[in-house]
Amino acid sequence: MRGAFAMASSEAETAAQAPPPPTPADCNASETAAGSLSKKQAKKLAKKEAKEDRKQQSATAAAAASQVDSAEADPLAANYGDVLVEDIQSKAISGREWTEIGALGVDLACRAVLIRGVAQTIRPVSKKMAFVVLRQFMSTVQCVLTVDKEFVSPHMVKFATGLSKESIVDVEGMISIPKDPIKGTTQQVEVQVRKLYCINRSVPNLPINIEDAARSETEFEKAELTGEQLVRVGQDTRLNYRVLDLRTPANQAIFRIQCHVEDVFRRFLRSEGFIGIHSPKLISGSSEGGAAVFKLDYKGQPACLAQSPQLYKQMVICGGFGRVFEVGSVFRAEDSYTHRHLCEFVGLDVEMEIKEHYFEVCDIVDRLFVAMFDDLNENCKKELDAINRQYPFEPLKYLRKTLRLNFQEGIKMLQEAGVEVDPLGDLNTEAEKKLGRLVHEKYDTDFYILCRYPLAVRPFYTMPCYDDPAYSNSFDVFIRGEEIISGAQRVHLPELLTTRAEACGIDVKTIASYIDSFRYGAPPHGGFGIGLERVVMLFCALNNIRKTSLFPRDPQRLVP
Amino acid sequence: MRGAFAMASSEAETAAQAPPPPTPADCNASETAAGSLSKKQAKKLAKKEAKEDRKQQSATAAAAASQVDSAEADPLAANYGDVLVEDIQSKAISGREWTEIGALGVDLACRAVLIRGVAQTIRPVSKKMAFVVLRQFMSTVQCVLTVDKEFVSPHMVKFATGLSKESIVDVEGMISIPKDPIKGTTQQVEVQVRKLYCINRSVPNLPINIEDAARSETEFEKAELTGEQLVRVGQDTRLNYRVLDLRTPANQAIFRIQCHVEDVFRRFLRSEGFIGIHSPKLISGSSEGGAAVFKLDYKGQPACLAQSPQLYKQMVICGGFGRVFEVGSVFRAEDSYTHRHLCEFVGLDVEMEIKEHYFEVCDIVDRLFVAMFDDLNENCKKELDAINRQYPFEPLKYLRKTLRLNFQEGIKMLQEAGVEVDPLGDLNTEAEKKLGRLVHEKYDTDFYILCRYPLAVRPFYTMPCYDDPAYSNSFDVFIRGEEIISGAQRVHLPELLTTRAEACGIDVKTIASYIDSFRYGAPPHGGFGIGLERVVMLFCALNNIRKTSLFPRDPQRLVP
Repeated sequence: MRGAFAMASSEAETAAQAPPPPTPADCNASETAAGSLSKKQAKKLAKKEAKEDRKQQSATAAAAASQVDSAEADPLAANYGDVLVEDIQSKAISGREWTEIGALGVDLACRAVLIRGVAQTIRPVSKKMAFVVLRQFMSTVQCVLTVDKEFVSPHMVKFATGLSKESIVDVEGMISIPKDPIKGTTQQVEVQVRKLYCINRSVPNLPINIEDAARSETEFEKAELTGEQLVRVGQDTRLNYRVLDLRTPANQAIFRIQCHVEDVFRRFLRSEGFIGIHSPKLISGSSEGGAAVFKLDYKGQPACLAQSPQLYKQMVICGGFGRVFEVGSVFRAEDSYTHRHLCEFVGLDVEMEIKEHYFEVCDIVDRLFVAMFDDLNENCKKELDAINRQYPFEPLKYLRKTLRLNFQEGIKMLQEAGVEVDPLGDLNTEAEKKLGRLVHEKYDTDFYILCRYPLAVRPFYTMPCYDDPAYSNSFDVFIRGEEIISGAQRVHLPELLTTRAEACGIDVKTIASYIDSFRYGAPPHGGFGIGLERVVMLFCALNNIRKTSLFPRDPQRLVP
Repeated sequence: MRGAFAMASSEAETAAQAPPPPTPADCNASETAAGSLSKKQAKKLAKKEAKEDRKQQSATAAAAASQVDSAEADPLAANYGDVLVEDIQSKAISGREWTEIGALGVDLACRAVLIRGVAQTIRPVSKKMAFVVLRQFMSTVQCVLTVDKEFVSPHMVKFATGLSKESIVDVEGMISIPKDPIKGTTQQVEVQVRKLYCINRSVPNLPINIEDAARSETEFEKAELTGEQLVRVGQDTRLNYRVLDLRTPANQAIFRIQCHVEDVFRRFLRSEGFIGIHSPKLISGSSEGGAAVFKLDYKGQPACLAQSPQLYKQMVICGGFGRVFEVGSVFRAEDSYTHRHLCEFVGLDVEMEIKEHYFEVCDIVDRLFVAMFDDLNENCKKELDAINRQYPFEPLKYLRKTLRLNFQEGIKMLQEAGVEVDPLGDLNTEAEKKLGRLVHEKYDTDFYILCRYPLAVRPFYTMPCYDDPAYSNSFDVFIRGEEIISGAQRVHLPELLTTRAEACGIDVKTIASYIDSFRYGAPPHGGFGIGLERVVMLFCALNNIRKTSLFPRDPQRLVP
């Protein structure tokens, strides 16, 4: 089999050196470009062939062994089959080159390519013909097997149609351009298969059909009208078989976007002089109090998992780093079983010295997020489209300069709309949603900052307002009416911090080293925390945060 | 005080608009650039002055209130003092601009600047003169107070010399260039102080003196010769007062380099088609077995903290993402109390599909680290110098193409050097160190990859060699004779994986969802894991991993 592989490889290499390809109509004959080899190329090829010859013997034996029933009498048996275990055990480096499926385009017409992908659909047409759609990441291509004398035998067609869906397959073939556009695949070329090897077989009966998992709401609506029965894959089933669920185009897109959000977060902050840090997740005491914590035994000492890097990022500011950020795990032992809470998520945290005003922090939020949204819209079009196909959504509306409202203004807007709210209490999820709609109507934005929250609803380390201690130098940020960021100026005065902690019912002894950090010269500072999963969920208007966590953790789920 | 601030601010703005500065000798007179104001600038200035005038009254009262004992009779009282709490509570945005201390250079000669920094040293010369060295991040500048009629009173000098070290201070002044080079500061200019306000006072007696904490071994050696008594700050004291310890130039540098390592890691992998992921840290079962785990109760279920993202990053590969990486917390409940083990550290993890051979993974390691070392040497000179001053070290030697040795070759080298080693056992720390020295001598590199480890010393998910099941498709990577990376091809065949897990004494029921992941079509793959703290420690040849963790966690330390 190696020998067979190597031949195609030489072809592929040769093809890469060849002059511009002929038009699709010209390329029915098989490619023979050996005549155009340079001396160096010929020498390289000879060397490779000699090397491959040595392997040929065992490879042929191997191929025979693995295709006993279907291929014993087949003279083209070397062109297909299951690869041997030893061939995927780092036995040798052939020097062959694989082309990514996403890179298969008309520019490769009539070229020989080698691709590796997942057999997404396998469709026998006759004993002499079959289609196999191969998928790699977010791209798919149609591979065509047509019986001929040189490459494809009826046995090979049978072998291909006998593969189970989702098996990993290597295909060598020629790129051709069909007359009509191809509806079912992302790539608008076909691969005329010459060789096909199964790298890894999936079980025949998959717990989830990728086709079902990728189906859009629109399809379900249409099916309802026509009376067609479609399988709907529920959230729990998806999460139980997450490895399969992750293969849908929408999920491939979601986690690419998530990575992109983190890219922009990091890049933007680095360009603004911030330093990325890592604070401990295993801590003594109960960190910030408030939300429930996961407790554990740490070498005989009571410990807990950090609910946020809050205290530590502030300590690093006291350590003289000026501006810092952290991307890290955050743990909340909350019992909330909602569409927007997880017991473990990824926190994007920022903390910075301020000179005069916590609006310096809001400025960073403003510019960071406008940069992020711009970047996503510009550079993740394919991903956003993939999500939109399965979960249709309206693009996020945001202003070039982010709207800032005071909490009191928000209260007033809600009251004027007939919503009963406590002017010194926190907004509940419903009120936040409503305010989001009111802001959208009035200001034409889905993204805004709400400042100057009542002190009573903020954590103890929040700086009170200079002119009214009932309010605080704090803010929340909303996307589509849901909170994604909390931020504030912090108390950097140890006496005030102690008073505030006590007033909030926190045992100051448990946070002594934190409070002490402010005794050695502490700069005024502020910061904010973001939930990464929430940013992605709300930017794409997804309905559940479990969709934006690879392996979500909620009160009822700890596996897989 | 605001009014006073505003005046200087206008000056600073004006200075920024003014023609190239005169030579240092020209600038004894105070700066008056109002004549060169454009109409627009003048209007802006007038507007600002009017605004500031309104604040003047309360500011003056405030200044007076805070300087009762020293300043009542001082006509220049507005030029110094402690700022009021309300002035650092987000009261107003003045529009003033602060210059970073690191940006103070000869190009700013005779310009008015406003800086904020930490009072590192305060040196009274007489009742009429004092020096204050201000520090910001890794930069320091000398500020000079000299009594004159316009700005600095004897009271002001007294106020300045009465400040406690490490207090946060705002200084307005003119940049001047001294005749002789300044030895004690990074910036080669001085600030002739006109105004000085204390933003936050530190306690008078600091638990650690930054000067002591920053002292180099060379200084201690010299002191020993002269009989001088120097305070040596021990590791535990440093860590107990980490917020102060972090302010030394070496520590400022270490964590900037750490961030830079992560930058390069991420940027390199992104450019190679890898996607950043986040896997859960709260998991059921005992993840990989082997090393001790932290256990906890998860809503009534037994859970533990992930010892690595190993199983999850592999599952994401089965989810069809091709190439992934993760930067995240890793927890090890080990009892090791060594210079190189922590109970919590930052893992840099990589996992990728491979086509044929685990050397594809080694290729990534090779190129990633060469890129990283190049980048650090080129872009972190200042940081490396700062570390070198306190902890002198030899620059890392590495080859353009990283050396790869087989484990068996390593064993042979050790045996030839007279070291007794088990050819199928693991190398202990001493043997690794020795091999590092032998490799350094023979190949002139401190960085190399050791491949093909005995299967018995690798985790159950490691792919055995095709030709000898006593060995595995695995590797470790060493810097200066210490391991920083473990990597391998993984077993992607569920039957073999089950057999291997059982052979390693792992209860396969606890990892059922992991093993099942390979039943739905699994690509051959491999990857590696790096300890971030170790990379920084070993690149800079530091002697303890606690130096490269902001708040290290070991069996005896959970605070701060």
